[in-house]
Order: sequence, then structure tokens, then C-alpha cells
Amino acid sequence: MARYDFASDNVAGAMPEVIAAIVAANEGTASGYGTDHVSAAAADRIRALLDADAEVRFTASGTAANAFALTCLVRPHEAVLAHEHAHICTDETGAPGFFGQGVGLIGLPGASGKIALPGLELALNEPDVSYRQPAAALSLTNATEYGTVYSADDLAALIAPVKARGYGVHLDGARLANAVAAGFDLRRVAKIGVDILVIGGTKAGSTPTEAVVFLDKALARRLDARLKHAGQLVSKGRFLSAPWLGLLGEAGDGGPWAARAAHANAMARKLAALMPFPLRHPVEANGLFVDMDDAALERLRARGWFVYRFLDGTARFMCSWATTPEMVEELGEALKAVA
Amino acid sequence: MARYDFASDNVAGAMPEVIAAIVAANEGTASGYGTDHVSAAAADRIRALLDADAEVRFTASGTAANAFALTCLVRPHEAVLAHEHAHICTDETGAPGFFGQGVGLIGLPGASGKIALPGLELALNEPDVSYRQPAAALSLTNATEYGTVYSADDLAALIAPVKARGYGVHLDGARLANAVAAGFDLRRVAKIGVDILVIGGTKAGSTPTEAVVFLDKALARRLDARLKHAGQLVSKGRFLSAPWLGLLGEAGDGGPWAARAAHANAMARKLAALMPFPLRHPVEANGLFVDMDDAALERLRARGWFVYRFLDGTARFMCSWATTPEMVEELGEALKAVA
Amino acid sequence: MARYDFASDNVAGAMPEVIAAIVAANEGTASGYGTDHVSAAAADRIRALLDADAEVRFTASGTAANAFALTCLVRPHEAVLAHEHAHICTDETGAPGFFGQGVGLIGLPGASGKIALPGLELALNEPDVSYRQPAAALSLTNATEYGTVYSADDLAALIAPVKARGYGVHLDGARLANAVAAGFDLRRVAKIGVDILVIGGTKAGSTPTEAVVFLDKALARRLDARLKHAGQLVSKGRFLSAPWLGLLGEAGDGGPWAARAAHANAMARKLAALMPFPLRHPVEANGLFVDMDDAALERLRARGWFVYRFLDGTARFMCSWATTPEMVEELGEALKAVA
Amino acid sequence: MARYDFASDNVAGAMPEVIAAIVAANEGTASGYGTDHVSAAAADRIRALLDADAEVRFTASGTAANAFALTCLVRPHEAVLAHEHAHICTDETGAPGFFGQGVGLIGLPGASGKIALPGLELALNEPDVSYRQPAAALSLTNATEYGTVYSADDLAALIAPVKARGYGVHLDGARLANAVAAGFDLRRVAKIGVDILVIGGTKAGSTPTEAVVFLDKALARRLDARLKHAGQLVSKGRFLSAPWLGLLGEAGDGGPWAARAAHANAMARKLAALMPFPLRHPVEANGLFVDMDDAALERLRARGWFVYRFLDGTARFMCSWATTPEMVEELGEALKAVA
Repeated sequence: MARYDFASDNVAGAMPEVIAAIVAANEGTASGYGTDHVSAAAADRIRALLDADAEVRFTASGTAANAFALTCLVRPHEAVLAHEHAHICTDETGAPGFFGQGVGLIGLPGASGKIALPGLELALNEPDVSYRQPAAALSLTNATEYGTVYSADDLAALIAPVKARGYGVHLDGARLANAVAAGFDLRRVAKIGVDILVIGGTKAGSTPTEAVVFLDKALARRLDARLKHAGQLVSKGRFLSAPWLGLLGEAGDGGPWAARAAHANAMARKLAALMPFPLRHPVEANGLFVDMDDAALERLRARGWFVYRFLDGTARFMCSWATTPEMVEELGEALKAVA
Repeated sequence: MARYDFASDNVAGAMPEVIAAIVAANEGTASGYGTDHVSAAAADRIRALLDADAEVRFTASGTAANAFALTCLVRPHEAVLAHEHAHICTDETGAPGFFGQGVGLIGLPGASGKIALPGLELALNEPDVSYRQPAAALSLTNATEYGTVYSADDLAALIAPVKARGYGVHLDGARLANAVAAGFDLRRVAKIGVDILVIGGTKAGSTPTEAVVFLDKALARRLDARLKHAGQLVSKGRFLSAPWLGLLGEAGDGGPWAARAAHANAMARKLAALMPFPLRHPVEANGLFVDMDDAALERLRARGWFVYRFLDGTARFMCSWATTPEMVEELGEALKAVA
Repeated sequence: MARYDFASDNVAGAMPEVIAAIVAANEGTASGYGTDHVSAAAADRIRALLDADAEVRFTASGTAANAFALTCLVRPHEAVLAHEHAHICTDETGAPGFFGQGVGLIGLPGASGKIALPGLELALNEPDVSYRQPAAALSLTNATEYGTVYSADDLAALIAPVKARGYGVHLDGARLANAVAAGFDLRRVAKIGVDILVIGGTKAGSTPTEAVVFLDKALARRLDARLKHAGQLVSKGRFLSAPWLGLLGEAGDGGPWAARAAHANAMARKLAALMPFPLRHPVEANGLFVDMDDAALERLRARGWFVYRFLDGTARFMCSWATTPEMVEELGEALKAVA
Repeated sequence: MARYDFASDNVAGAMPEVIAAIVAANEGTASGYGTDHVSAAAADRIRALLDADAEVRFTASGTAANAFALTCLVRPHEAVLAHEHAHICTDETGAPGFFGQGVGLIGLPGASGKIALPGLELALNEPDVSYRQPAAALSLTNATEYGTVYSADDLAALIAPVKARGYGVHLDGARLANAVAAGFDLRRVAKIGVDILVIGGTKAGSTPTEAVVFLDKALARRLDARLKHAGQLVSKGRFLSAPWLGLLGEAGDGGPWAARAAHANAMARKLAALMPFPLRHPVEANGLFVDMDDAALERLRARGWFVYRFLDGTARFMCSWATTPEMVEELGEALKAVA
């Protein structure tokens, strides 16, 4: 049986703190559709984590969380600017178009998954014409698809020209925990102008849950009806919010969510140290992207290790909260053997 | 603090068998997006329960499950026939229109939530004209919104003229467990012509999960891409499927899903026996609908019991797997006091 | 061959002034997508007619014009309030849902096609709940579907509580010319708070064209891209705008558009005088709605006259700019014979 | 005042045969929504032109015609294969996504606007995965965006592997007349497997009208309701169909539609002979694409001639039915002066 351990950070189960929080939240009666006490408490934790006021909701799917968020920032005849290899552009089966009624996506270039400012400015300076969907928002991803991490200053520099035009800003934080573990300062997210932030729970080590955080509360008008209309409001809301009590802990420091992401990042660094194939991108979070030809990849798969060939042609190795040093070492042995 | 115990069957938590199944499924690594071993096992259980082959998927939201299912049966310029008080018509914030790009809904009359055959036939016989959305599917609900239960023969009689026109059939089974506990024969669902069945997990006593069952497998083409496009495919699929292992047990008899629904139905009958207000509809499943004027409802709420006024003007009381005889008796006392 | 003369006001061709304007506009070169000189001149005429500033565009279809306008006023999870027999609710094949991604429609009661204020206020006072699409705009129709005409004061009274909530107002003017001919003051449309007005050209006697008038210019942001995205921007825009030069004339008095509507209204009054069947609604514009049983309607059709049975069960007779006194008399004879 | 004569083939008015046909069709009464005698006659002409049975409808906008056609071939979670510079990919403001609820577009490479078979096959061989929209149809354009022309054999070679997978085929014929004038055999369109053909009227020299031709009639189920739902069914249908009686004439040889396209093509060849700037693509239809730096383009514009810089960086010059030898010569002088 193939080992998927490094195929993605979503192959791991949920961390024990999450399971414990679900069990605790299961007690007694709770009102429906996100109006419950557990969801209120989890939203408080998230506001504390960000040091910002916000409307907070929880969805089961990250694809939905991001696509839904974008519909709150742009209209269908407009477009979202994003890195050309951003998840919303390449791996979400066109979900932004479904949620956004054909909303456009404009791919921007940039090394190692980070948007380059000149390309962004070029796109922002495109004249409005009736036959193209004009940009109306910027979507950022941190950590990026290539395991690199923007600093808050990096993001601020990209956001400034977008805000200057009155456009919206979305931050896809599917791996935000890994960015935080790499030094990204979460308390600056609101201040630099992110309007809607999606904080990834699933990849960080939860059962399915993503937090959709409306830092611009004006965008959250009639939000629950909007979520329900889009099939994104579950009746027993406590089971999407409870994991966050486990993930974030009570100390306000990001809790196991941050701590276990630091572990995942450390496992990636450990794997990097053992990696016989050349790294294509800096290892700043929990993923490695290496140059590996088909024959070598085939040999690795033949030894039982399944990993994906990624958009830029590299082979991708992802670590998670559940990755152990032993797993890394085992893989390291296999890599050495096939190199 | 208000007691929501009887406000809905979704105010209860998850039954212990579900939590245990989640804990068990959490072990180890699993491939993503519903391709995991837990989802495969849960689908097997559901096929066994129905005694039918089918494609089975799991979603977190019942609203989404139903709306999505309808898009597989009709095109946007067509319409779905449903009871005028069906959940898809009245309580889902227009989600069928969102998923179905403005798909139409045609409300049919019928006593106590059951569609009356003459009204259905009248609607089916409407001539096709370019300025109205013509019917292309029938959506049924069992148990109904008013706590009544169709027999398989009842459904077969409604389905026959629909199938004769080549139209599709959807069965919203948010409370299918309660119907089964009331005698509905699940093994006939496929045989009488239901194309897509949504089996409710949430209201039956699970964490958020609904099973979307494609009994007509031809409708399931490229189903996973379709789910993902619609924001309905979570990466850690095991957490939406694992509950079904707990709900259904291993014996093939519906397990705790059916047994605990029988309990909920019994609690409803017990409450009916204590009810001082006139029942508007037969108590066949887990809900009671009574005539209760505003003053009496206000007095009840003043005693701390919150229940909803329903579409037909009745006050609705819902029992669940978690309802205890003591809760029923407490409520009975309160009702006696305000009558 | 059946005579459709009174079946609808869209069975007539275009008035000679329209054809002449098209021929005149056909000369020479014009820039594309509505940026041409003819469209600019037609927009000027419309602004003058309304005595108001506005963004003006032209579409080929009234269904599209109305549905598109609504998407500029409400979001998909919200709903439009309209008379329950308004064209957008009953005769447009769900187009508002297509353009509006499942936007809701809430039907309001009222005699003879006019919305009754109490029903409107009831709907406006509905509490926001997550499971229903809340109202966000009012759609009015003048002349109404039943050939009655609102005064500007009537409309102002309906609009006031809507505007008080910050909601938008749409006016479907498919038969606005007939309302104007009946005394409706077009110069008050902007002042009483209509945000988007659709002025019917087709039924008034044009080739296909409707003017979509954004009295609230803030709603017109990136309007041409929005129209093109929705398939509503033709390249040779002059052919949708030229008819308005013919319809409205140069005098600023509504020209042939108003004068020929006055003729149509007069033909309706003439027919009313000959009508042996009871009129159900006041004849204020160009339509008659009469009580006529199936046998009589069949006899009329057998004599070669085709008319529609309408939503309220009446038989509908529509006059147009092309209706002649002779046609009315011929029909009057036939009606007398079948009564 | 800038001269737009060569900016596009839609800057010209309508040919006299079209105006005459509109005037003729304007007589008398006609039933609504495309059920009229003029539309029936025009559809007959088109079937004769193609030597094929088909359902034929008429829309005012080419953007809408193409986007609508695609929704009949693929589902929203699927994608359409098209040349990366096809109009639907680059110049229709995302209309396919609006009509197709977020349907995907996959751009294919190929010289001078023609799809190269290897790239098509590569795309067709992509494995189905849940996170990408899989191909379900091919969209072709003839003449291409770059003024080149596919032969029927060329198209047959591209269509074969598409049909082998059971996918649909759309042909955007905005400039089909120019392709026919260049030798493309229209009578083979049906035989080589095109399912839906859009025949351009507007650019060929009509008032706004495009013919949407369902060669696979099974795709045309409930077509009028579908068109109306999408805002594409005008009530006075005769004014969209009448132009085709003028365009096609009675002889079955393509009439003025083909003959005037031959003239446009000849004007392009004449311009090519005078062109001092290097041609980037073969001049096979009515367009020229030349290498011209910004300074030269600016000088040309300064002399009053407006043309567009196109997607591949060339300057584009389009001829139409209305282009005269004198206009070509005038432009030729200007080009010589700025070269």
C-alpha cells in the first residue's frame, strides 16, 4: 500500500487537541446555524489571535471559503488578481467562477509563488475596457503554494497600490499557521489592509474547518443568509467551530495551531537536510519542491512513496503536524536510494 | 437561558457512536478528497442499507446536498416540483437557485406536507411554453416537514407519472431515519425510481454530514470535480464519512441511526400524549405541530422554552435522539401550565 | 390563419418613424459597443424626456433589461419585492434567477396589478433570518400587467418605505408609454426615487430595443463590461439606439412613442365600449381583461381570433400602436357573436 | 474626428439588402418570441445553406450566442478547449463563465490563430482529476482571430479526437462569411461533426443578429425557454431573422452574405499589396496583422486613423463589406507616410 505521508498536509488526521475540543463541545444543546456558544467562543479566540475586530464564520471546505470570500470583494464582471499558481487559479476546479458567477481570475507572475510587484502594477494599470474583466481585488496566499513565506511588510507593499484604487484584498491562509511559525506577524494582517482572511484549520491539523474572517465588517452584511444561500452554513455549527478552541488554546499565542505548524516546518527543514535532489524553492514553511526526473520519481513510487508532481514541474513533499522524525528519516533513506 | 431542546432536531449534539467512529477514523494517514478507506467503507454500508448499487458522497450541509442533487437532475431553465412547504422551497435561502443558476421551483399543494397526486398531475400536464420554466424533476421529502411519513407505495404512486415523462426524482431524507423508524422500507427506494437520495446524518444525531446517494449512477459523471467546483468536496473526507460507520453499525439493520430515530419518534408520541393543544397533523415521526395562539406561545417562551412558529401557523415541537422522557415531562408540565 | 392582432402588443411591427430612424442611422461608420454617436444622441433624448441625469444603455430584450437591472440592486442571497403577477415573477422563465444567480422574488398582493401598501409593509417588516432571502429592492411596473396605471404619487407612496430601509427601486416600463399617455408624469420618476428604469421600446412600437436608465449613476460602475459579461452589449449599438430617435422625436414631448401609445389606449377604450363580456379591471392603458368562460373563448378562437387566458383567469385583449378602429370593430363583431 | 473604418468589421452599417429585408418583414402582424413566419423562412434558408437539418435561432449579440452555445455542450464543472487567443477566451469579458456558471476555458496554442493538433491532443489526454475542470468540448473559430482560414479537412482533423471522446464541438463563425469567401465549404460543417454553429450576421454586414444553429438537434431541448431564461429571446423575433433573408438571398449560394465577404477579403488583399509594414500572418480573410512599433502607430493615429493593437502585439486592420478601394488607397497613403 502506497504511503501518502508526504503527498499533502491534508493526509494527516486531526491533532488530539481538536478531537478533545469536539468531544467537549458535544455536550448539551446548542442553537443552530452558527448562533451557538461554541462558535461565539471560537470567534473570540480568532479575534484575539489577530488583535482585531472581525466577523468570523466557519466552513468545512477551504475551496468554498476562498471562493465565497472572493464573491464578497468583486462582482461577476470583474476579476481577482492572484499569483498564476495560486490555489484558486489552478487547483479549485473553477470554484471561484461557480461562486462568483463567472468572475475572472488574472494570473500574476512571481518567483517561488510570491507575486512580484511590477507585474501587479502592470495589471492594475490596465485600462478599463468593456471586453475584459477589470481587476477589483487582490488575492494573496501565505505561506505560498511553493512553501515560501511573505513578511507582513512584503504583503503591505503589495496591498498598498491595490487599496489605493479602492480594491479589496483577500488572504488565503490555508497554511497560515506555517507562515506564522516562520515568523509572519498575524497581528498586522488587519492593519495592512486585508479585508477577508481565510485561516486554514484543516491543513494545520484539524477536522474539516476553515475560519472566514471579515476584517472589513461592512462586507459581512446579511452574512449568514449569504452563506446559507451558497450552501455554506451547517446547522450544527459547533462542530466546525469547536476545533478552533483546540487549535488555538487559551493563551492567545496561537496554541497548538502555531506550535504544531512549527513542528511541521522543522520536519521540512530536516527533510531538506537529507534531500539528495536539488531544491527549487527556499524551504521556509512545510513544503519542499525538488527537481526530480520521471525515472527517479517512478523509482520512489516503486518503493511505496507517493508524492505529486507540481505545477512548476517539481516533485512536492509536504510535512504536517503528524510528520515524525522517523518518517522523515525513512523517506530520506528512500530518496538516497533512488537518487 | 432559553431551552432550545424542542426547537429543532439539530440542537442536539452527536450520539456517542458517531464520536467513537470519528476517533477511530482519525488514526493514521488517509488520501484526500473522499478517496480514503473510511469513505469507501461508509459508502459500502449505505449501499447495503439500501440494498442497491450507487455512487455515494458526503457533504457537510443538508442545504448544499439537496441543492447540489437538484442540479444533477434539471437544467437552469427548468423547474423542480416539490411540496409548497418543502424545505428547498421555504427554508434554504434560495440555495437551489444558487446551485442551479436560477433553476425554478414549483410548489405543489397537499395536506400535512404530503404532495397530493392530482396537483402533481396538473403540474405535469402544464404545456411547455417559452415563458415559464417547465418541470423536469420531482423532489420528495420523507419524513415530511410536518412529521408525516410516506410509505414506499405512496412514493411509488407519485413517482410513476414523473418517470413516465422521463423526469428525475430526488428524495430529501433529512429525517429519513425517522421515516424508517415509522415503517418506511428503505430497500424500496431504488426500486421505485428515486434517482438521487440525500440521507440525513445531522438531524439523525451526527456531527455535520449528509450522504448524497446517486442511485442512477449515470448522473454521477465527473462527480468529484462537480462537487469541488461547487465547494462541496472537503480534503479530509474521512471526517464526513466516519460518522456513518457509527450511525449505521455493522449489522445492516440501520444501527443506531434507525434505533435512535425510533426513540425520537417515541418521544414525540409521548409528548403528543401530554399535549394540551390540538395537534394539526398526525404524529408519525419526531415532530408535533399544534394550534397555539400567540399569547400561549409567549407564556411558554416566558417559561424558558423556545419553539418556532411554523409555515402553517402551528407551533412546532421537535424531538431528537437526545430527547429524554424527563425533558418531555418537563415540557409537558410547562405546556399544561400555559394552556 | 389565426389573427394574433389582440394577442399581445408585441405582435405589431415597428412604426414608420422607427424604420426611418434606423435607415438614417445606418449611414457611415460608427464605433462599436454603444460608444457611437447615435447611442449618445438617443441617451440625450431619454435624459431630456425624464428631465434627469442618468446613464442610459439599450438592450434587445425586455426580459434581459429587467433581470439585468435587478442584479444591480440586490445580491444573490437577497430578494426583490414585486407584485405577485409582475412579469418578472410569472412570465420571464426565471430570468431574474439566471442573471441574479438565484436571487429571490417575493410576490406581493394587490388588486388589478397594483401593489397594496399594507402587503408591502408587511414584507418589509419581516425579520432577517438566515434561512430566507431578505428583501433588498422593490420592482414596480407601470402600466401594470392588468392595464392599470399608477400615478407618480401612488409610486411615491410605495417607494418611501423602501427607500427608508436603504433598498433599491426598479421600474419596469415595458408599457411606460401607455402609462404616460394615461397621465403618468415621467418627469417625476427620478424625483420619487426610482434607481433603475427600463423604458419599453418594443411594445411601444419599435424593433427590439429597451432603454435601461440608471438614474442612480453610482449603480452604473463598469456598466459596459457588466453588460458584455451578461451577453447584453451588441457591437453595432446604433441599431438598438436609433429607434429611440424615431420614437421620441425632437420636441421633448415623448413624440410618436407617447402619441401612438395614446392611440393604443384609445383603441382599448373603444374596444371596451363594444365588449359584451364583463371587464375585470379598469381600462386605463392598452389592455382589457374580461371574464369569459372556456366555451366562449373557444368560439372566439374558432372564428380565428387568438387571445391568451391570463394569470387571473381572464381573457386578455391588447391594443397597440398598429391597432386600427376597423380591427377593433371586426373583433367587436366577433365578440358579440360568441357572447 | 478619428476614422474607425479599419478598426473593426463592426464599424460598418448594414448592407442595403438587410435594410430592405427588415422593411419587408415589418409588414403586418407576427406571433412573438421567434414563432413568426419570418424566422421560419430564415431558418429554412440557413438549413439550405448548410445542406443540413438543424434547429435555428437568432440572437442580437455574438458574445451571447457563443456563450449560450457552450452551455449546451458542457456543464459548469467542465471546460471548453479553444485557441488561447479565441474571442471567447480573450474578448468577451468572461461571458462564457457567466452563462456557464463558472465553466472553464482551456487555452490551446497554435500559429496564426489555428489550433495545433498536438496541443489539442495533449489537453484531451490530461487525466480527469477532481481539482481541475476537465475538457468536455472544443470551440473552433473560422475565419480565425488572425484572419486565417481552416479548410473543412483542417477542422475534421481537429474534431475527430474530440468526438472520439464523446465531447461536443462548437464553431464560432463570427466571420464565417469570410471563410466561405476564402473557399471554406459550408456544406461540410454538419458532416464533420460540428454540434452547434454560430453564423455571424453582424460582422458580415447586418444589423445585430447571429444565427445559432443546433446541428445536433438533441441539444436543443426546450430551447426557447432556455433562451428566454438567459435573456436571449426577443419578443419581435422577426427583426433578428429578417436580416438573414437579405443576407442569404434566395439562390442558395450564400447571396450577398458570401459575395460581400468576398469583397471584404479582396479589400484586405488590396491593402496587403500596399502595406509597408511586415505582415505577421497570412492574409486569407478580411484582416491584416502587421508589425508596427508604437511610434509608427502613434503617427498613424495622429493622421486620424484608429486601429487596435492586438493580442499578439501586432496592429490589426479589418476590412468589411463597406470598405471601398478608395478607403484602402487613402489608408495606404497614410501608411506609406508613417512607415
